[in-house]
Amino acid sequence: MKIHNFSAGPGILPQEVLKQAADACINFDNLNLSLLEISHRSKNYEATIAEARQIVKELFEVGDEYEVFYLGGGASLQFAMVPYNLLRESGTAAYVNTGVWASKAIKEAKLIGNTSVIASSEDKKFSYIPKGYIIPTDADYLHITSNNTIYGTQIKEFPKCPIPLVCDMSSDIFSRTVNAKDFSLIYAGAQKNMGPAGSTMVMVKKDILGKTGRKMLSMLDYQVHIKGGSMYNTPPVFPIYVSLLTLRWLKKNGGIKWIEKINRQKADALYNEIDRNSMFVGTAAKEDRSDMNVCFLLNKPELEVDFDKLWKDAGISGIRGHRDVGGYRASLYNALPIESVNVLVETMQAFEKKFGS
Amino acid sequence: MKIHNFSAGPGILPQEVLKQAADACINFDNLNLSLLEISHRSKNYEATIAEARQIVKELFEVGDEYEVFYLGGGASLQFAMVPYNLLRESGTAAYVNTGVWASKAIKEAKLIGNTSVIASSEDKKFSYIPKGYIIPTDADYLHITSNNTIYGTQIKEFPKCPIPLVCDMSSDIFSRTVNAKDFSLIYAGAQKNMGPAGSTMVMVKKDILGKTGRKMLSMLDYQVHIKGGSMYNTPPVFPIYVSLLTLRWLKKNGGIKWIEKINRQKADALYNEIDRNSMFVGTAAKEDRSDMNVCFLLNKPELEVDFDKLWKDAGISGIRGHRDVGGYRASLYNALPIESVNVLVETMQAFEKKFGS
Repeated sequence: MKIHNFSAGPGILPQEVLKQAADACINFDNLNLSLLEISHRSKNYEATIAEARQIVKELFEVGDEYEVFYLGGGASLQFAMVPYNLLRESGTAAYVNTGVWASKAIKEAKLIGNTSVIASSEDKKFSYIPKGYIIPTDADYLHITSNNTIYGTQIKEFPKCPIPLVCDMSSDIFSRTVNAKDFSLIYAGAQKNMGPAGSTMVMVKKDILGKTGRKMLSMLDYQVHIKGGSMYNTPPVFPIYVSLLTLRWLKKNGGIKWIEKINRQKADALYNEIDRNSMFVGTAAKEDRSDMNVCFLLNKPELEVDFDKLWKDAGISGIRGHRDVGGYRASLYNALPIESVNVLVETMQAFEKKFGS
Repeated sequence: MKIHNFSAGPGILPQEVLKQAADACINFDNLNLSLLEISHRSKNYEATIAEARQIVKELFEVGDEYEVFYLGGGASLQFAMVPYNLLRESGTAAYVNTGVWASKAIKEAKLIGNTSVIASSEDKKFSYIPKGYIIPTDADYLHITSNNTIYGTQIKEFPKCPIPLVCDMSSDIFSRTVNAKDFSLIYAGAQKNMGPAGSTMVMVKKDILGKTGRKMLSMLDYQVHIKGGSMYNTPPVFPIYVSLLTLRWLKKNGGIKWIEKINRQKADALYNEIDRNSMFVGTAAKEDRSDMNVCFLLNKPELEVDFDKLWKDAGISGIRGHRDVGGYRASLYNALPIESVNVLVETMQAFEKKFGS
C-alpha cells in the first residue's frame, strides 16, 4: 500500500533520493565500497562535502562572504552555538519567541549571556507571528525562527534588521524564495526539507565571527569548522551525502522557484479545504499560516476515532498534532507530492459527507 | 573486484549490515517507509533506540548503575563534554597523553578547568604506552585513550584507578574483553568497530554526574540526554540504526569473546609477518602493539612505489599511514575478515620475494 507521509520530521524525502541512498550503502561511486565504510578523507567523499557546501550557496545565491558547513547535534546544538559564537561577554542578544523551539534557543542564550526577548506570541499559544517590534540596534544579533512546526505558523515577511539577523530555518529551508543576503547566519537541521536526521547545515557570514572575546571549545567554534573545511573531525558522512542528494534533486528540477510554486499549490489546496469543510478549523492566524505545517482541529472532537480510521484507511501517515498541542498537523515538505495532499483533501471531504450534519 | 578494506576509520562494516542498511533506506520494518523519512518518535524507531542502548550494556555486562546514550558530534565533542560534566570548578582532571587524540582531549579540558597531564609518551613520538604512573587521588577523573589509531599502540592492562576512570574507546570498543565496571565513563565514535560515522556512544555511571556546580548548556549535559532517553532532540537516526545492526551482528555471532579470538588471529598473522619479513619494520613498542591498527614502515623507503603497486593490484585499500606519521597502517577492525589479512600477508611476501636481497 502506498503511504502518504505527512510526518513533521524527520520527514518525507524524494523516492529517487532514497533509492540512491540505498545504492550508496552497497557501492558508493563505483568504488566497490559502501559509503558507510570509507574514509571521509577519501577523494570521492571530499567531493561530496565540497558539492554539499557549494550547492547551498548556489540555492541561496550568496557569494564567498558566506561559509557553509555541516555539523552533528541538530538545531538544538545551534541554540547554544549561536550565542557562544556571537554574543559578546558584555553584549545582549535579541530573540523573538514564536514557540517551543524558539524558547529553547532563548534558554540556551540566557545561559551564555544577556538575552532580551523583544517579541513573543506566547499570549495566544504561539498561534501567530509577532510583527512591528523594535529591534535594539545595540544588540549583537536578532534570532528568529522562520517556521514553527508545532503551531503551523511561518514568518511571511522577514524584519528589516539593522543588526546581524540569525534564523533557524530548520522546517522551511529551501521551500520558498528568501533573500539570503539579508541574513548573517542561517541554520537548519536537515531532517525536514533537506535530508535525513543527523546533520545540520550552518551558513554564516564570516565577518560576524571572532568578536566575542570568549575562549572557545573547538567543537563549538564556527571558525574551527570553517578552517577545517567542514571536516574538523569525522563528519556525519551518510546524512550529509543524503542531504546532497536531496539538494541535487531540488536543483535539477528547477530549484527554489520550482518547489515554491508546488508548495504554494499544496498549501492552498489544504487550507482551502479546511476553510470550506464544516468539520475542521485551522489553528494558526490566517496571515501567518505555514506552508509547511498545516495545523487543524476537528470541530467535533468526539469524532476523532472516525476521522482517524478514514485517514489511516487511505494510507495517510504522520498527521497527528505535536504531543504538546494535540489536533492534527499535515506537513507538506518539499518532497511530498501534491497527490498526497489530494488524498488528504478527499479524505476530509468523505469525512464531512459521512459525519457532517 | 573484491576490495580488502583496511581503512582506519570510518572503517569496514559487515556485509550483512550494509545490506540491511540499504534495505532500511527503502523500507524500514515493513512500514513501506524509509528509515530516512520516519519520525524518531515512531514506535518502531523507539524500539531501535531502546535496543541500541540495551545491547551496549549487555556486551559490557553492566547493570542499571550505567546509562547508555547516543549523540552526534563524534568523539571530538566528548573531549569537551567529559570535563564539562565531570570537572569541578575547583577540581583537577588527570590525563594520560598517548597521541593526537588524547592531546585534543587535553586541550579541551584545559579550556574548562585545571588539567594535569600525569603521563605522556610524546618523548618517543607516541610509539609506546606510558605505565607505572601515579594517579592523583584528589583528581576528579582520569582520562585515557585505549587505542591510538595513528601510532598503532593499545593499552593492554588498564590502570587500577582510585578515581573515576574515563576512556575514549573509539578505535577498539567491543574488539576485546574489558572489565567495563572498572570504568566510570566510556565513549566511542561509532565509525570504527561499531557503525558508520555520525553517532557517538556514551556509557556513564550515573553517580559521577551532577557534581560540578556548573550551569550546563542543555546539549552538553549528559543528564539531559539521559533524562531524554537518548532522544532529548532528534538523534542521528540512521547512524544509530546501523550501529545497532553492527552490534546485533556481533552478539549473534558470539559476542566479544568470539571476535576477540578472531582479532587475535588477525593481529598475530600480520605482526608475525612484519617481524619475519626483511622488507618491513613495525613502529610501535612490541608490548604495546595495537590489535586494531598495525603500523609499519618499509626498510627501503625508495621501494614505496613498487609496494604500493603490489597491494593496489591485490585489491587492498586504505593502508596508507596517517598523514601526520606516514608509512603504512592496516586497520583490522571487527568486520575485517581474516582472508583480507591473508591477502596482505601474501602481498608482503611477494614483495620480499621480488625486491628482497
